Amino acid sequence: MMNPMNSIKESPLFKIANPNSIAIFGASNNSASMGSIMLSSLLSIEYEGAIYPVHLKEEAVQNLKAYKSVLELPEVPDLAIIVLPTHIVCETMEQCGRKGIKHAVVVSGGFKEVGKEGKSMENELIEIAHKYGMRFLGPNCLGIANPHHKLNPTPFIYEGLPGFIGMASQSGSFVTQMFDYLDRLGLGFSTAFSVGNEANIDIIDCMKYLGACPNTKVISMYIEGIKDGKAFVEAARTIIPHKPIVALYVGGSEAGKRAGFSHTGAMSGPDRLYDGVFRQSGVIRAQSVTELFDYCWALSSLPRNIGRNVIVQTNSGGPGATAADTIGREGLKLPALSKKTIDKLAPFIPHTGSINNPVDITFSRNQMDFYTNIPEILLEEKNADMLMIYFLAPTNMIKNVLRKMGVPEGELNKNLNDMVRKNTDAFAEMLENHKKPVIGYTYSSIQEPFIRALIDRGVPVFPDPKRAAKAIGAVIQYGQVSEKIKSTLTN
Amino acid sequence: MMNPMNSIKESPLFKIANPNSIAIFGASNNSASMGSIMLSSLLSIEYEGAIYPVHLKEEAVQNLKAYKSVLELPEVPDLAIIVLPTHIVCETMEQCGRKGIKHAVVVSGGFKEVGKEGKSMENELIEIAHKYGMRFLGPNCLGIANPHHKLNPTPFIYEGLPGFIGMASQSGSFVTQMFDYLDRLGLGFSTAFSVGNEANIDIIDCMKYLGACPNTKVISMYIEGIKDGKAFVEAARTIIPHKPIVALYVGGSEAGKRAGFSHTGAMSGPDRLYDGVFRQSGVIRAQSVTELFDYCWALSSLPRNIGRNVIVQTNSGGPGATAADTIGREGLKLPALSKKTIDKLAPFIPHTGSINNPVDITFSRNQMDFYTNIPEILLEEKNADMLMIYFLAPTNMIKNVLRKMGVPEGELNKNLNDMVRKNTDAFAEMLENHKKPVIGYTYSSIQEPFIRALIDRGVPVFPDPKRAAKAIGAVIQYGQVSEKIKSTLTN
Repeated sequence: MMNPMNSIKESPLFKIANPNSIAIFGASNNSASMGSIMLSSLLSIEYEGAIYPVHLKEEAVQNLKAYKSVLELPEVPDLAIIVLPTHIVCETMEQCGRKGIKHAVVVSGGFKEVGKEGKSMENELIEIAHKYGMRFLGPNCLGIANPHHKLNPTPFIYEGLPGFIGMASQSGSFVTQMFDYLDRLGLGFSTAFSVGNEANIDIIDCMKYLGACPNTKVISMYIEGIKDGKAFVEAARTIIPHKPIVALYVGGSEAGKRAGFSHTGAMSGPDRLYDGVFRQSGVIRAQSVTELFDYCWALSSLPRNIGRNVIVQTNSGGPGATAADTIGREGLKLPALSKKTIDKLAPFIPHTGSINNPVDITFSRNQMDFYTNIPEILLEEKNADMLMIYFLAPTNMIKNVLRKMGVPEGELNKNLNDMVRKNTDAFAEMLENHKKPVIGYTYSSIQEPFIRALIDRGVPVFPDPKRAAKAIGAVIQYGQVSEKIKSTLTN
Repeated sequence: MMNPMNSIKESPLFKIANPNSIAIFGASNNSASMGSIMLSSLLSIEYEGAIYPVHLKEEAVQNLKAYKSVLELPEVPDLAIIVLPTHIVCETMEQCGRKGIKHAVVVSGGFKEVGKEGKSMENELIEIAHKYGMRFLGPNCLGIANPHHKLNPTPFIYEGLPGFIGMASQSGSFVTQMFDYLDRLGLGFSTAFSVGNEANIDIIDCMKYLGACPNTKVISMYIEGIKDGKAFVEAARTIIPHKPIVALYVGGSEAGKRAGFSHTGAMSGPDRLYDGVFRQSGVIRAQSVTELFDYCWALSSLPRNIGRNVIVQTNSGGPGATAADTIGREGLKLPALSKKTIDKLAPFIPHTGSINNPVDITFSRNQMDFYTNIPEILLEEKNADMLMIYFLAPTNMIKNVLRKMGVPEGELNKNLNDMVRKNTDAFAEMLENHKKPVIGYTYSSIQEPFIRALIDRGVPVFPDPKRAAKAIGAVIQYGQVSEKIKSTLTN
């Protein structure tokens, strides 16, 4: 078995993702330029290493001492970030090489993806790197974000918490534009790579890095085309036994193929071919960005080997029935409750409710019935592998009730927050005493205080039971493929 | 051709959805009781008719004069709403009948859905109504919401605007719990019915009412089981030529079937049977609540007969490629741009962008290029039937740029709001001059100011291109089925 910490330090990406010092080319005091925006993101996340802006004219760039040439820097920085017009990129790489810099991110576009002349400049870039033993991401990429290292030299500010989803993406947008997307789900990136044209470091290198990265629990990938299918399969198969990989591949349809080519010049192949590659490698395929991160969410929150038997707990008949229906359609099962469970539930369920699966508790005056007493009984049900709970969390309704109970307007939020904390803490504590997983679903906003508090306590709550059921399906699929791959390994 | 206004007034539901006066049973000064909560919703929406709480002991209920008996009311109210313990419901209906009340909503549960004894009470209720010529919704329902009439005696406050989506639902939750759901999408109900056990008025009556309702542009239905398939098909076929119907049916899977039965006692049937019923009737089937309202959104925003040729406009390669891919998979087409369009676009697209379909404009300094100049050219493309635009709308990034440009902190929001208004007004104005529809997609929050402003100007913006493409598919399907049904009608 490989030692992940050794393997990560040997990765060409280690210094790119964990640099102690950075030279940045293209940042200035013109706040609208791409390089300036990227530097300001890096400052905003409070990067702790040294930053050396290189600028021909300025003495200082965004309050940092600037240097006329990379050759003048007081040390050899771990990483160069190049955000310059295409025609001066090669020259700059050459100077970085002479300085002794070994790692770079080339953000500039205008290379292979724009045609023949760009392709020849890209070849030159590759040769320069080879000459100096440099490794680089790009060109035509947004580079890297590693919030655990307070590193984010991308055009978007990283405002969420460091997370546990790794990303290797053939689109910079699916790095940067997902910061906010993931934050809204209470998630975040461990480390994310935008690979661009993959002239030197490719998406497989990124996947391997993330496989070894201790902050990464699950790897997400956005793929427009893989150059070396065999290498992809081999690399993925070493990772899958340790952590799941989920991929969104968009090159399979005629339309997707054309779009991908004009984007990064990637060569895509027929859908069936990629289905085969993913199946062989044990990678789980998502069909949309929504599915990609839904699957990552479930895969990083739920245990590895779960069964298909789901009990649904609801306080509304309709949402219970939609969950039951979608569970049936997505290949999961709704087991009957055992006599023992039914007897234990009886005191908690009114006659208008249903002691069945779904368990419909309708209205319960004691919120602890909903948050602990009933789920506790259900988690002990021997016929069930997991529990799926409908969370309604109508903040406004609760506020109105508090208002009617005479709580003064100024104290409503405090009362509500206390209630949220008390209920969700009790729920989280109960979960700790049980090995069976719980997944939530809701039609309310994920940002409702109750929902968000549950999410922040590690309970995934999906905005539709269908999304929850499909995500559970991905976890089950991962359990199967990882076992299968493990069984074929000879160590 | 029927006259909708005549037909709506003949509906047993007309006075239920548009009452000028209401007697309510079960509301009190105990703010936690269901009846009290429902009355307070009715007060909160500022219902303009007379409200008569009937209460054995209280002089006043929630500051309204209360009456000991319905027989004492100063007039015969249009509607009785009964939220009482099961065993006194029949007696109360009897008194309402004697008073001359012709319409009721029976919210109370504990009837057919709980077994034999409940079934016999439900029969008694049916007989009483018959004796007095009364029509009623329920029992075991949440009744009615008609925000256009400022009518909402349900347990949830209606805080959004009156909308144009009709709802006939075998779950009260999919009336009340959707108020907030729809509001978050900038949508709202025209009129929504929770039918409960359908002892007297059934879901087909509701569908017919909504078919005739002038505020309703599209009808949504939540179905656990239809009693009279033939009557459903006949009624739907008269409506479809005028307005679309979208249904979520959950009784088809074994699991869904069981859940539905314990919920409303509905008898469901195999999926295939319902697929046949929906196909014959021209009803579009949704597979989740998300799809149900996505389809309604597109069906109420886009023209009836649209083609499959979609141009995608994006400023990011990855999101463009995901849209292109999903368009291919969902049966839509990405036509090539004509020479004329390419020539007109050329001055607006930088060399790192792509004049292709998707049109990738990458970064544009002039926001009007994105909001009017480029879409205007694309809407004139003869090969295209519609335009799908990726909206990123990174509010925080724009605020940061404004900040760097020296806009004082206190003026940031005003500046941002002005920018939102200017751009989205110009966009909406441009759309008015073109007949081709535009649909948006985003991975940002729908509540981002730019997105929400577009939505409020009538542009649907879906949180994933897959959802957008599926919703366009529903509109195309509707165009086909409505033409087919029209062609078989003999008038």
